[in-house]
Amino acid sequence: MNINYATIITIGDELLIGQVVDTNSAWMAQELNKIGIPLKHRVAVGDKWEDIWNSLDEESKHASIILITGGLGPTSDDITKPLLCKYFGGNLIVHQPTLEYVTHLFKNVFKRPLQDMNKRQAEVPDNCIVLRNERGTAPGMLFEKEGKLFISLPGVPHEMKWIMENEVLSLLPKKFKLANIVHKTLLTAGIGESFLAELVKEEEAALPFTIKLAYLPNAGMVRLRLTATGEDKALVEKELITHFNKLKTRVKEYLVIDEDLPIEAAIGRLLIEKGHTLSTAESCTGGYISHLITSIAGASAYFKGSIVSYDNEIKQNLIQVPQQVLNTMGAVSEETVKIMAENVRSIMKTDYCIAVSGIMGPNGGTVEKPIGMVWIAVASSKSILTKRFDFRFTRERNIQLTAINAINMLRIALCG
Amino acid sequence: MNINYATIITIGDELLIGQVVDTNSAWMAQELNKIGIPLKHRVAVGDKWEDIWNSLDEESKHASIILITGGLGPTSDDITKPLLCKYFGGNLIVHQPTLEYVTHLFKNVFKRPLQDMNKRQAEVPDNCIVLRNERGTAPGMLFEKEGKLFISLPGVPHEMKWIMENEVLSLLPKKFKLANIVHKTLLTAGIGESFLAELVKEEEAALPFTIKLAYLPNAGMVRLRLTATGEDKALVEKELITHFNKLKTRVKEYLVIDEDLPIEAAIGRLLIEKGHTLSTAESCTGGYISHLITSIAGASAYFKGSIVSYDNEIKQNLIQVPQQVLNTMGAVSEETVKIMAENVRSIMKTDYCIAVSGIMGPNGGTVEKPIGMVWIAVASSKSILTKRFDFRFTRERNIQLTAINAINMLRIALCG
Repeated sequence: MNINYATIITIGDELLIGQVVDTNSAWMAQELNKIGIPLKHRVAVGDKWEDIWNSLDEESKHASIILITGGLGPTSDDITKPLLCKYFGGNLIVHQPTLEYVTHLFKNVFKRPLQDMNKRQAEVPDNCIVLRNERGTAPGMLFEKEGKLFISLPGVPHEMKWIMENEVLSLLPKKFKLANIVHKTLLTAGIGESFLAELVKEEEAALPFTIKLAYLPNAGMVRLRLTATGEDKALVEKELITHFNKLKTRVKEYLVIDEDLPIEAAIGRLLIEKGHTLSTAESCTGGYISHLITSIAGASAYFKGSIVSYDNEIKQNLIQVPQQVLNTMGAVSEETVKIMAENVRSIMKTDYCIAVSGIMGPNGGTVEKPIGMVWIAVASSKSILTKRFDFRFTRERNIQLTAINAINMLRIALCG
Repeated sequence: MNINYATIITIGDELLIGQVVDTNSAWMAQELNKIGIPLKHRVAVGDKWEDIWNSLDEESKHASIILITGGLGPTSDDITKPLLCKYFGGNLIVHQPTLEYVTHLFKNVFKRPLQDMNKRQAEVPDNCIVLRNERGTAPGMLFEKEGKLFISLPGVPHEMKWIMENEVLSLLPKKFKLANIVHKTLLTAGIGESFLAELVKEEEAALPFTIKLAYLPNAGMVRLRLTATGEDKALVEKELITHFNKLKTRVKEYLVIDEDLPIEAAIGRLLIEKGHTLSTAESCTGGYISHLITSIAGASAYFKGSIVSYDNEIKQNLIQVPQQVLNTMGAVSEETVKIMAENVRSIMKTDYCIAVSGIMGPNGGTVEKPIGMVWIAVASSKSILTKRFDFRFTRERNIQLTAINAINMLRIALCG
């Protein structure tokens, strides 16, 4: 079967100077894969006429679908539209429905006068199909040339997503016969990549050439992803599931969840299943654990709240950690996190409470308590788990690793 | 002057199926730009021999420096090392210092037995220069071919960063004569991209061709970036600063900070300057505001803590929002956020307190209080600011916009 590949070209100097992290491409890749369109490349180019033009030439050699994001704004650094107009030999004309929508947005939503440059957002090449954008003023555009599709979308993430979801993803299967690609993922914690590889080597050796295994380490956890490709969807899925189940059995000691979900979603499910509630008492993570937990829709079913006690005064006055403990053992100690977890569990009236205290850097370390040293406690009505960690990284990564490990300790407590 | 461009090739199927957001490229791009190396492209390719090989051929046509990340792990899906060995016609040999370092890591840091596959991490092509990696087991490799540099680095972000900072960035200026690129950025809030463009059109028209202006909208704010390139560093900087100051004067009403810093860093500086302290009372943002503020090193100088009252019980019992207010006005109301801000300011004994309550979606909206509706309050000893917002986006983006707008309201309160 001939596979139709896609390529994503992202346009913008901000990508090449690193001022913006490209989150669009990952999202687009996920959505394309779901409907059976694998990616060949992702390419970022600057706001330069020649570079954009060349990337269109180059990428259309390798892919059937070329998705282009960025450079559609109203300002002078946005050159994608005139470029595409010229590339495909068209003329700019006013697209009446877009002009009406832009006028409506300025009048009723933004409540600001319409500028000339905003009106020009409604101009499109006369040889494209206009893709509606209900989230903003720049419409998407679709061009066809020599059997290839070129789709231009705004770079603003929520505008791009709206057009993908409402216009592009339903259109592609009508244009191309698509492959069946199925991914299944296991999330593991508490084991390194090379030990995991050693553990599953038999299962890996037994995989047919149509199924691929990938190791994806991130923030102290490793995801194992199986990917199967083929023509017959039922057959592809059946074979994948057989191998997936063998892998799952082998890693069960380290298994967090058998889906491609973050650990904060996995513990949300566990808490709902068991009908338990949660609170957090955070010092060094400054609310990041609470943020991760509440980033999951529906978290209000099990999460009650958090006390972020960044200052010791708050630990003492609001959480009632005795001054003597803070003076003798210090804020970063097993005693302090134990009392934080127990007291906030009682203040918030929850079944479980996570508490953390540590030194995230880049300053504040001592010989006895170096940067990266963290104490974590998980309290329930029956028991209290505590553990010391020593991370060796940047502030950002230390905060992230502390949060992930704290949530994993909650998972261990919940499981048993 | 001949500009030496770099290209970043990131390797890994996880990038093409969107399982991982590529944060490496943005960081690398920033560091390269700082030392005068602009990027030509950023390209992501899968773990496929032919695709990696072709990208090396293709990118070396456009750039003098080809940075390659990923595919250096110990498992079978990692093929970068054997590929580079073949591409440059070398043979794999054991690199003794790396073997000693890997052995040390397993013995003293990981405290686990060394596997055969870990030992193989110390094998390198005999025609490369080995770049030390003190953060992990995979060393970096540098190859030279026809005047071009090829640098291979691990994909794990903190390992890649360590090698860049300790080996690569000091080496590049010795190999190439580099251009002077200077960027200066203004962060604005409270004005849309097109209105900003209208506001600065005179200043934009007056820019010489060596200075470029870019508009970077993100999360309700717009950054304006000027970029100047030239041979004479002092001249480039002088000319840039003249234009930068004109731009700054023009946008002063909307100016958050005249550096490329996030707003949470800008308010940190303001709080230190004025000697004021801060706390937060968060409902719908679930700790995200507190997380942003504490992501800045040194935040303990002004931030005391937060009460995340996700459940109304916590608002009532811990923050003392009267039950009657919650029953009659609701948790998402001006009255509730006012009381939250005032009471938590008093509980935490801070000069300022930010409070937020809203409906982030995807569920929980009503006709009267739709998804995206948010009340924000900022309390000080002298006054209280309140404002209602109506966002129209996904849960993730609604949380982000609420946090950014809340921090901006604090900035307005601080500035008087």
